[in-house]
Amino acid sequence: MAESLTRHASSRRVAETSIGEYLIRRLRDFGIRDVFGIPGDYVLGFYSMLEQSPLNVVGCCREDNAGFAADAYARINGMGAVCVTYGVGGLSLCNSIAGAYAEKSPVVVISGAAGVRERYNNPLLHHKVRDFRTQLDVFEKICVAATELTDASIAFREIDRVLMACARSKRPVYIELPRDMVKVVPDGPYELRQTELGSDPEALAEAVGEAARLISDCRKPVILAGVEIHRYGLQDELLHFAESTRIPIACTMMGKSVVPETHPLFAGLYEGAMSRAEVTQFVEESDCLLLLGTFMTDIDLGIYTAKLDPGKCIYAMSDDLRIRHHHYHDVLLGDFIRALTARRPTPPERVLPLRPELNGHQYQLDRDRPVTITRMMQRLNQSLDDQTIVISDIGDALFAATELTTHGHTEFIGPAYYTSMGFGVPGAVGAATARPDLRTVVLVGDGAFQMTGNELSTLIRHGFHSIVIVLDNKGYGTERILHPGDYRYNEVQPWHYHKLPEAFGGGAGYEVFTEGDFDRALSEAWPRKQLTLIQAHLPIDDSSPPLRRLAEHLCKRL
Amino acid sequence: MAESLTRHASSRRVAETSIGEYLIRRLRDFGIRDVFGIPGDYVLGFYSMLEQSPLNVVGCCREDNAGFAADAYARINGMGAVCVTYGVGGLSLCNSIAGAYAEKSPVVVISGAAGVRERYNNPLLHHKVRDFRTQLDVFEKICVAATELTDASIAFREIDRVLMACARSKRPVYIELPRDMVKVVPDGPYELRQTELGSDPEALAEAVGEAARLISDCRKPVILAGVEIHRYGLQDELLHFAESTRIPIACTMMGKSVVPETHPLFAGLYEGAMSRAEVTQFVEESDCLLLLGTFMTDIDLGIYTAKLDPGKCIYAMSDDLRIRHHHYHDVLLGDFIRALTARRPTPPERVLPLRPELNGHQYQLDRDRPVTITRMMQRLNQSLDDQTIVISDIGDALFAATELTTHGHTEFIGPAYYTSMGFGVPGAVGAATARPDLRTVVLVGDGAFQMTGNELSTLIRHGFHSIVIVLDNKGYGTERILHPGDYRYNEVQPWHYHKLPEAFGGGAGYEVFTEGDFDRALSEAWPRKQLTLIQAHLPIDDSSPPLRRLAEHLCKRL
Repeated sequence: MAESLTRHASSRRVAETSIGEYLIRRLRDFGIRDVFGIPGDYVLGFYSMLEQSPLNVVGCCREDNAGFAADAYARINGMGAVCVTYGVGGLSLCNSIAGAYAEKSPVVVISGAAGVRERYNNPLLHHKVRDFRTQLDVFEKICVAATELTDASIAFREIDRVLMACARSKRPVYIELPRDMVKVVPDGPYELRQTELGSDPEALAEAVGEAARLISDCRKPVILAGVEIHRYGLQDELLHFAESTRIPIACTMMGKSVVPETHPLFAGLYEGAMSRAEVTQFVEESDCLLLLGTFMTDIDLGIYTAKLDPGKCIYAMSDDLRIRHHHYHDVLLGDFIRALTARRPTPPERVLPLRPELNGHQYQLDRDRPVTITRMMQRLNQSLDDQTIVISDIGDALFAATELTTHGHTEFIGPAYYTSMGFGVPGAVGAATARPDLRTVVLVGDGAFQMTGNELSTLIRHGFHSIVIVLDNKGYGTERILHPGDYRYNEVQPWHYHKLPEAFGGGAGYEVFTEGDFDRALSEAWPRKQLTLIQAHLPIDDSSPPLRRLAEHLCKRL
Repeated sequence: MAESLTRHASSRRVAETSIGEYLIRRLRDFGIRDVFGIPGDYVLGFYSMLEQSPLNVVGCCREDNAGFAADAYARINGMGAVCVTYGVGGLSLCNSIAGAYAEKSPVVVISGAAGVRERYNNPLLHHKVRDFRTQLDVFEKICVAATELTDASIAFREIDRVLMACARSKRPVYIELPRDMVKVVPDGPYELRQTELGSDPEALAEAVGEAARLISDCRKPVILAGVEIHRYGLQDELLHFAESTRIPIACTMMGKSVVPETHPLFAGLYEGAMSRAEVTQFVEESDCLLLLGTFMTDIDLGIYTAKLDPGKCIYAMSDDLRIRHHHYHDVLLGDFIRALTARRPTPPERVLPLRPELNGHQYQLDRDRPVTITRMMQRLNQSLDDQTIVISDIGDALFAATELTTHGHTEFIGPAYYTSMGFGVPGAVGAATARPDLRTVVLVGDGAFQMTGNELSTLIRHGFHSIVIVLDNKGYGTERILHPGDYRYNEVQPWHYHKLPEAFGGGAGYEVFTEGDFDRALSEAWPRKQLTLIQAHLPIDDSSPPLRRLAEHLCKRL
C-alpha cells in the first residue's frame, strides 16, 4: 500500500531485550495468546523461551496440522502463529500456509534454522535441502512478507515490518530465527514505529458520493458480503450500514457467517447457479450490487455461473475500490463502509426471498430411516446456537454445510476457496484454543479424516468438547460425482472411525446408521465435556443438492 | 554434467501418442511399475488414464505420505513416482520431496494443474495460491529439474529432459500437467534421443593411476562406503573391488546396507565419535581412506567429530573426484571403481576390528525384564535375515538401528541426513510395494508415529505383512536428551497404538512391556501374512549408546 496512506504513527523504545524476547513481546502486542507447532532441534532454544513466556504452546501431531490450527485460530482471534523447526518442520507447512495465503488468514510462521555461525563452508547440516536459503525462498512464494533474522542490528525492525504486513494484508508471513540468534541482545536502543493507514480523503469523498447516488437512485439494491468483512473485523459496521439503509445482505460461501443468518435483512447464500434459485434471482436481478469484501473465487461464483454485470456493481475490497468500470485508489474498505453509512443513502426497500426454514421445511425425526447428509444438516440445525463454531472440511462437508443456519455470534469456518482436504479436525484445535468457551462442531468426509484425523488426539489431550462428525461414504465421494466412472482410486480403506477416541486415549465414539442413531449421538454429545466422534454411514451415492448442482457445472467445464 | 560426457546415443520415433500416454510410457521405460498418490480434481483425467495403464496406482492417506512412499520405493526400485493434484496436493509434498532431494532419491513428482485454457485473466480458480506459477516456483527450489507441460510442441522433449535428469542425478524432478493437456496429441513425429554419459578417458586414466599408487604404497587402507554406491547400483562393483584388493569396508549411516554386514571385509559403521571406539580408530588411523560415494553429512560425520585428514583421502562422488587436495573433473564414480579394480593395486592386509556379535555379546532372553531399546535391537538381530527390509524412522529408532546387522540382500532404509520424522510407516508402503516378497520391519518412535501412522491403513489395505514397532517413550525422546530440561513441549498424548490395527480394519496389535512380551509378539508376527503393530513401552529415559554419544556432542555445539 502506498506510503501516502500513512496517517498516524506512534513509537516505543526498546532496550536490553533479546531477539527471541522481542518476537514474543510483539506477538502478544498483536493479540496472539497461543502458538501452535512441533518442537525440533533447530528451534528448541526458542521453544524453551516460549514455554517460559505468557504464550501458551499447543503441540500438534504434525506441522501441517499445526498450520491449519493456526489458520483457524487466526480467523477467530485476528492473528495466529505456528512455530516449527527448520526444513522438515518448515517445509511441512507449505500447504497449510498456502491455504492461509489464498484465503487471507493472518498466520505468522516462525521457523528455527541452523545457527549463523554453523553455516560457514555450506556444510551438510541435517534438515538442509539445497542451501541455507531454500526454505526462505519457498516461503517468499507463499507469504506476503518474509525475513531471516541473521543480523541483530536490523532484527527488531524486520520483526515489526513482517508482523505489520501480516496485520495489514491478513496474509501469512515468515520469520526465520537461526538458533544462535535467539538470545542475542542487539546493541543500542530501538525505536518501534507504529503506522496506521488511512484513506486518501478526497478519493474517499468522491467515491462515497458516487456510490451514495447510485444507491439512492436504484430500485433493487443488495449487498453481497464476503470474507474480508470478517478478516478486517467489519461485521458491526456492515450490519450498521445495512440496517440504516435497509439494504438486504446476501453472503458468499467464503463469507458465510459474516452476518447472522437469522438477521431480518439476510437474503441467503449466493453462489451463482449453485445457490437456491430464489437467492440467485434476487442477487442477479439487482440494479445496484454492493460487493463488500468479496473474494471473486470460482466456487463463490458457482464455478463462474454467476451473472453479475460490472456496470451495476460497487466492488469494495481491502486493496481496490471499483465502481462500475472505474477504480479509486487508496480507499480502505472500512473507511468506505463507515463514510457511506454516514451519507445515509435512501434506496427503496426490497421483499426478501423466502427462507427454507420459514418455508415449512422443518425437520421431523424419522427414527429408522438411514441417515443422509441433507437430513443430517437439518437435524444439526436444530442443535446449533450462538455458542457453536462449525468447521467444515471440504467436499460435501462444505457444500452441505451451506444449508446450516448460523446464529448470533456463530462462526462458520471452511476452506471454501483453497479447499484443502484435512482442514477440519486440525482447524477445530485452533478454533477450540481461540474460544474454549464455545462448542466446536466439525463436519469432515472420510477421505479428509484419514489425512488429519490424528489431530483428534490433540482435542482429547486438551479436553476440548468438540463434536467431530465423519461423513463416511467409503471414499472420495465428491470426486465420484465430479468425474463419474467406476474408478478404484476413489476408494479408501474402511476404518472403524468410532474406535479412534479409545485408541487415542479419551472421548466417546458413535457409529450411526439411522436418524435415530444420529439423534441419540448428538443429544448425548451436546452436554458432554469431552470429545465426541460420530461415524455416520452414508449411502455411497448420497450427496447434497449444492454438490449435485456444482458437479453439473464442473462436468460441463472438464 | 558437461555435454562432453555424452558418449552413446540412441533414438526412437514416437507418433500418435497423447502427452499423458507418453508420460506413462516413459515412466515404464525407467522401470517404474507403481505410482503413489491421492487423486484430486485437477488430475482426475490423468488418474483415469493411469488406472487403465499397466502402472499400478497406490492410494495413500495423505500426499506427503505418498511422497515418502515414493522415496522409499525409489531407493529400492531405482526410480519412483508420486502423482497428485494442484496446490493442496503438490504443496503437501514439499517436505517429503525436499527429503528426497537432500538424500538423493530419484522421485518423479507429477502434479495436475488448472487447464491452460482456464487461466486467462488470472481467475481465482480453487487450489490456486498466488498465481499459476507459484507451485512450479516452489518445486524448482527442491528439485533438480522441473517443467510445466503447457506447450504440446515441446512436451515430449520436456518429459525426457526431466526424467533423464532424475535418472542421472538421483534427485527428484517435477512435471506439471495441466488437465486440458493430458489427451493432447502433439503434431508430427518426435525423435526420442537417449544419451548415456561416460567419463573423460584421459582424466580417468590419470586419476586411477594416481589412486592405485597411493593404495599400493600405503599401510592401512580402508574404504568408507556411502549412499551413492546404493543409488548408482554399484554394490557389486564395490564388493568386487574390495575383494580383489582385500581392503576392508566401513560404511556411513546413510550408506548402511550398501554391503552385507556379515561380509568378512566389513569393518563396521563409522560415524565419527558416535561409532564404536574400535571402528573410529580403525578408520581414522588409516593412511589411505577411500571415500566412495560418501555424503559428508553432519550425522554421518558424528556431528563433525570425524577426524579425517583430506591429505590421506581419495574421495569419489558422482559429481566430483578429489585425491588429496586436487580434483579430477568428468570422472564417473562407477567408471572409477571399475578401472581401479582392473588396475589391481596390492595394499597390505589389515586386521579388522572385533565385531560385537563375535565378541560374546549374544542376546539371551530375560523373560520378565522390562524392554529397553538396546536389547530389543539384539533380539531383532536374531530374526533378521536376507528376506527382510528394515526401515528406521528418526530419533533413537535410527540411532539404535545402527546396531542391527544387515544380511545378504537386506536393505536398510533410514532418512539419516534429512531426518524427517514420520518417514517410517509411509516408507514401508513404498518398500513393500517395491518388494512385496520381502518382509518390511519398521522402527518408529511414538512422536513420529503420531505424524504418519495413519499409513498403517494402506499397509493393511494391500495385505502387506509388515511389522511396525512403535518405540513408545511417551514423547520426543531424542529432544529430551538433546536439550535437557523438564519441558512440556516434548510430551505427546499417550495413544493405545496397539488398538489401531483394529480401528484401521485389519492386522494384529501387541502391547509389550517385557522381553518375554516382545519375544512372543515377534515370534507370532514373523510367520503371519498380515500387518503386525507392536507397541513397546520403554522407560522414559531409555536410549541407545549411539544416541547418548550423539547427544553429548550436539549439546556441546548448542
